[in-house]
Amino acid sequence: MEHKVIGKSVERWDAIAKVTGRANYTGDIPQKELLYGKICRAKIAHGKVKSMDISEALKVPGVVKILTPDDVPEISFPTAGHPYSLDSRYVDVADRRILTRNVRLYGDEIAAVIADSELAAEIAVSKIKVEYEEYEFYLSTEEALKEGAVEIHEGSKNIIADTINGTGDLEAGFKDADFIVEDVCATPIVQHCQMENQIAYAYKDVDNRWVCVSSTQIPHICRRILGQAFGMPWGKFRVIKPFIGGGFGNKQDITIEPLAVAMSMAVGGKAVMLDLHREEVFAWTRVRHAISYKIKMGFTKDGLITAADIDAISNNGAYASHGHSVVAKGGGITTALYKIPNFRYRSRTVYTNTAAAGAMRGYGTPQIIYALETFMNKVSMQTGIDQFELREKNFTKVNDENPLLHMTQHSMSLRECFEKGKEVFKWDEKRKFIDENKGGDYVKGLGIAAFAYTSGAYPKTMEIGGCRLILNQDGSIKMMVGATEIGQGSDAVFSQMVADTVGVPYEWIIADAVTDTDIAPFDTGAYASRQTFVSGMAVKKAALELKGKILEASYHFSKRTNKVTVDDMDIVDGNIIQKHDGQIIEGLGDLALNTYYNMHEGHCLTADVSNRCTKNAYPYGITMAEVEVDKKTGKVEVLSILNVHDSGRIINPILAEGQVEGGMAQGLGYGLAEELKYDAKTGKPLNNNLLDYKMPTSMDVPDLSVAFVEIDDPVGPYGNKSLGEPPLCSPAPALRNAIIDALGIYVKDIPVTPQKIIEALSENREV
Amino acid sequence: MEHKVIGKSVERWDAIAKVTGRANYTGDIPQKELLYGKICRAKIAHGKVKSMDISEALKVPGVVKILTPDDVPEISFPTAGHPYSLDSRYVDVADRRILTRNVRLYGDEIAAVIADSELAAEIAVSKIKVEYEEYEFYLSTEEALKEGAVEIHEGSKNIIADTINGTGDLEAGFKDADFIVEDVCATPIVQHCQMENQIAYAYKDVDNRWVCVSSTQIPHICRRILGQAFGMPWGKFRVIKPFIGGGFGNKQDITIEPLAVAMSMAVGGKAVMLDLHREEVFAWTRVRHAISYKIKMGFTKDGLITAADIDAISNNGAYASHGHSVVAKGGGITTALYKIPNFRYRSRTVYTNTAAAGAMRGYGTPQIIYALETFMNKVSMQTGIDQFELREKNFTKVNDENPLLHMTQHSMSLRECFEKGKEVFKWDEKRKFIDENKGGDYVKGLGIAAFAYTSGAYPKTMEIGGCRLILNQDGSIKMMVGATEIGQGSDAVFSQMVADTVGVPYEWIIADAVTDTDIAPFDTGAYASRQTFVSGMAVKKAALELKGKILEASYHFSKRTNKVTVDDMDIVDGNIIQKHDGQIIEGLGDLALNTYYNMHEGHCLTADVSNRCTKNAYPYGITMAEVEVDKKTGKVEVLSILNVHDSGRIINPILAEGQVEGGMAQGLGYGLAEELKYDAKTGKPLNNNLLDYKMPTSMDVPDLSVAFVEIDDPVGPYGNKSLGEPPLCSPAPALRNAIIDALGIYVKDIPVTPQKIIEALSENREV
Repeated sequence: MEHKVIGKSVERWDAIAKVTGRANYTGDIPQKELLYGKICRAKIAHGKVKSMDISEALKVPGVVKILTPDDVPEISFPTAGHPYSLDSRYVDVADRRILTRNVRLYGDEIAAVIADSELAAEIAVSKIKVEYEEYEFYLSTEEALKEGAVEIHEGSKNIIADTINGTGDLEAGFKDADFIVEDVCATPIVQHCQMENQIAYAYKDVDNRWVCVSSTQIPHICRRILGQAFGMPWGKFRVIKPFIGGGFGNKQDITIEPLAVAMSMAVGGKAVMLDLHREEVFAWTRVRHAISYKIKMGFTKDGLITAADIDAISNNGAYASHGHSVVAKGGGITTALYKIPNFRYRSRTVYTNTAAAGAMRGYGTPQIIYALETFMNKVSMQTGIDQFELREKNFTKVNDENPLLHMTQHSMSLRECFEKGKEVFKWDEKRKFIDENKGGDYVKGLGIAAFAYTSGAYPKTMEIGGCRLILNQDGSIKMMVGATEIGQGSDAVFSQMVADTVGVPYEWIIADAVTDTDIAPFDTGAYASRQTFVSGMAVKKAALELKGKILEASYHFSKRTNKVTVDDMDIVDGNIIQKHDGQIIEGLGDLALNTYYNMHEGHCLTADVSNRCTKNAYPYGITMAEVEVDKKTGKVEVLSILNVHDSGRIINPILAEGQVEGGMAQGLGYGLAEELKYDAKTGKPLNNNLLDYKMPTSMDVPDLSVAFVEIDDPVGPYGNKSLGEPPLCSPAPALRNAIIDALGIYVKDIPVTPQKIIEALSENREV
Repeated sequence: MEHKVIGKSVERWDAIAKVTGRANYTGDIPQKELLYGKICRAKIAHGKVKSMDISEALKVPGVVKILTPDDVPEISFPTAGHPYSLDSRYVDVADRRILTRNVRLYGDEIAAVIADSELAAEIAVSKIKVEYEEYEFYLSTEEALKEGAVEIHEGSKNIIADTINGTGDLEAGFKDADFIVEDVCATPIVQHCQMENQIAYAYKDVDNRWVCVSSTQIPHICRRILGQAFGMPWGKFRVIKPFIGGGFGNKQDITIEPLAVAMSMAVGGKAVMLDLHREEVFAWTRVRHAISYKIKMGFTKDGLITAADIDAISNNGAYASHGHSVVAKGGGITTALYKIPNFRYRSRTVYTNTAAAGAMRGYGTPQIIYALETFMNKVSMQTGIDQFELREKNFTKVNDENPLLHMTQHSMSLRECFEKGKEVFKWDEKRKFIDENKGGDYVKGLGIAAFAYTSGAYPKTMEIGGCRLILNQDGSIKMMVGATEIGQGSDAVFSQMVADTVGVPYEWIIADAVTDTDIAPFDTGAYASRQTFVSGMAVKKAALELKGKILEASYHFSKRTNKVTVDDMDIVDGNIIQKHDGQIIEGLGDLALNTYYNMHEGHCLTADVSNRCTKNAYPYGITMAEVEVDKKTGKVEVLSILNVHDSGRIINPILAEGQVEGGMAQGLGYGLAEELKYDAKTGKPLNNNLLDYKMPTSMDVPDLSVAFVEIDDPVGPYGNKSLGEPPLCSPAPALRNAIIDALGIYVKDIPVTPQKIIEALSENREV
């Protein structure tokens, strides 16, 4: 099918409003008589609140109310932004209270102050006196799992889950191997650092329901979790999402909304705002799981994998959040990337007294890809098998069924990605130059990594998308989607889909700045790189339905004078035409006027589609990186880095490039610099701020190269597969592999900081 | 059909919010950096602006911009809240500019100031110096139609329209008459005095479209008229209606929104508020047409009408607004009330230099009913035929086709209304007492009047309604209607319809506080008493559609275990049941969870209905009034007054009573006190404020009695016919007839003020 709008780099509909500052984010929306909430946080890492004295705090002028665990529902609720599950086996762990007496991490939420200013609230928080009973605390999974460890959650043994997946016969697989390679690795705790902190306010609506305006990736899920947290019917809540300044998964969890609502309930429904500091966001919202891997693989002498045994232990921090699903995902990702006839994937998710780990861009994939792709590097170096060849001969193929996810893949272009990558990156030239110019203090190296991902969460959880379209009187089309625009440009892409499918210019599509759970078509939100794929299917169906209704109506109104049948009609550039000769029958606006204003017949044309998705498609991609390491200081300079993506058809190239560049920058930080650290003596986070936490700034990020291999996926709504999370999956291992290539020694674990490089160099570790 | 929610006096969903002050009206919505607009108004009644000097005004601190006619589009647009017409014969007169150089009434809008405070804007307005060229001005239709009168609109001859409707053979009808009666009467200019003044603000939206938040009865029509006023595609505008403090037709006209948008456009899209004073609302928004009638009717000796000739001249003021349709409506109303075999209805609508007359509760019907029912009183008094008998023998009957409206009526219970009225009012007792106690300075009298009305505007204009319903996860149902809640309680009534039809408790229906033209189902708004009838049809269809989908889904999900067919399923009190034994299959919430969260099938259930209405139904009713007149002072005390309504089935009795009481109070003011007056020397309004304009206060309104004759109308969605405007149609003539009955002399024309009574008494005018 020929596309007129899809595949074009059209301008985002909200671009001008955003660059001119006219876009309203949650904190920008003016409120009458707004009150402010501040959280009183525990000053120990593990223990119990024995008593709390709020008398001095209450005396602070401007304080309206102080909430303790006694003042909020004694209901444990889950916080993960997963769809509700009808299957009790897959129900999220409900281990969270709005406020807690049981302190499970330094900074846990034990009380909250409501005041008429943020300052008054903060001062009051500082005046709350707390007596604790202190327990031993655990920052690592090893400590938390040790014999006799205190249970962070009663009855949990500090284990959220311990599962084994796999396929084939592991023992037989290793028997068939000509050689076996083993390795261990670990990934750090990192934080999303999305631009806009968590912020929400709540108030009682005119119909006595509760409204929560929140910067959330998952408005509809937020509504459900509010219902759960208060033990009230879900329809009693309304969640409104204004413009949102990024989330990267951190806002795919319900961290502040129940407290915001509880605070409003405590003051008779007045609006109360909860606006977290960066320090709070860093350590007390969500982080990426630190996961440790033990990998063992068997290979034939030609380099074909015969068996793989992976043991992953995931540090989930103090609350379950997304819990086990993050580390568990690694199994299916492994078998999506590599054909492994005999495979065992054990994963354990462990409570510790660190920040709760939840969803973060890639959802466990950056960790498993780091483990796999540094492992493959080791295999290549140990065996001498070319690293491209080693990977390519083990890559899965089109029509392979994933033995863990039980879904067949319909497109897979990793070989083409390498091919394109080598050309764009000038791999051979670079390789030759480096090989011919070895030695000295400044050494260069090249690294690669490949990854697999998924498009949406089916069949792990249910997938559904919704879209309502309204044909306006002038032919423009209002589009309501349940999917969540969080800055990534999804509304622009959906608008392209509608315009392309109906047959009107892109500018004719009107998107919504706000998602309102009361009226937005149901859709579970922005996560799992699901939107262009899952929600896109609903958008396409709605557009096709509207187009069908338009053509029927035009036929109906003009049939007396027009001999053309509906089958011979189409819509092109906003005109209804005869297909056989392209002649215009009428403008869409003229037809719309008839549907609205005819005295005797017709009606307004809308399409209101809710679409369940029972498909998935695997996007793929690679990173190629060139680094220069200063052996004297350990400083790494990224000379060039390229991502090549197989995400099927690209809907909007410039937005897609932006997605990839952002992910690559995050991958760079993940590989080279970022780690949230804790004080071993107190359990207090050490660097929960943007000064001490080393996120790459615009000064640190080199030029980023992006390329696409565009082969239509047969199940993607427009041949497209996901692209949201993929870009950050492969840069870290590619960079680490490049550093090893440069140094010729083994560098352990990301972030590969100058300190680690100097240590490795001084020990002269063998690869 | 048995109803569980319809017919019950359930509490309005917004009741608590309104009485506690939590309901946000347009002026309550907080805005960032709001600017304020004020209108510079002409100080002459007719002429031209020769020059304008804004230099001093611009110097006022806080002034941002001053707009003159040079700064706004030179596009003439219509302002009437009518649906757009595809038939060029019925297109509204486009005689309005956003700002004008041609002054057509005292106070015409010649410039506008935008400032950072209302005060600064007002000061600046006072400093604008204007030079005029003055013309003769006309306050009455006679003056405007005189030979050589200056045209208020070029080429109009000061006549908007002059039409004749009718049926039969007038001349033959009069020949058949045994006697002929003639009379003239006139009605005054009155104003709506709705509680909330006109108020709107506009700003540029994030997608560069224009948003106008306005207290309007007609959000979708407002959007269209903004498109017309700016010559831009209608989809470029978005109109949002918050809670609204009444309209009575005054907000069924677009009086301030184009200027609000123009002001925002002038300041780069910043929000600008236009909030009229009461004085402005009174004289410079819309008023009710003053209409003069000349009536001639022929009767058989038994009192049957043989012919009627009515000549109506309507004072439309300076702009066309709803124009001719208001007076023209009188013809069809006459033949809806009385069977007239030979009928001629001539109506003329005339421009004068007074306030533009537009829609006001009753839309010409209070005027024609005043004329008809005082006329019938005269006939009864002159012929001695009992006034009930005279009317009843001429009333139309069920299945009569209205010869002017070409619509058959399916229910008509005026005889039953009289019957019930006599009983409730204790007519015979009162009559007897009065007849036996004549004489003295304080005289009592009784009067009656009957009226006919319509339900919506079809077939005069197109009628369409829309409703979207969403089944929430807890079984509650979100209802989006395009109809406009303006304080009358329509959303409560629609909620009852949905609850009753789907089979859930009323409390499960969630209404919208706001109407937003971007997303609300299309519906032309609150006017013509159309909503429960026209919009109610769409609501019913949507509810039936949703119910059908619910039963299908429940059948689908449970068919393996359940032998019941869909036909044997129903929804009662929020449970899906087996009809044959009433056993509960599942709760609606359980079914809803399945539709949302089943992994493999199902989808969210919604119904999105747009419904064209090609029906009408005539509501009827009567007023009975008892007055006591103080012959020394002319003061009239209303001792008792009763309205009995035939509006088919009543959806919510307590809301219906409220509607009727409000209308009766307005009818009282219309009959006895209200009139907007002009200074004959300057053309300036004399009493455009709530002190000098004598609207009845709570101290003036006596106890009001209300009764209903509830006979289902076969075409009403729930047997219901309209009730919004009817209550105000018959009080004024009933009161005037009662005064004549008391005094035994002829009192001319409403308002029947003490002064007029004293004049009539001193002249001893014959009936």
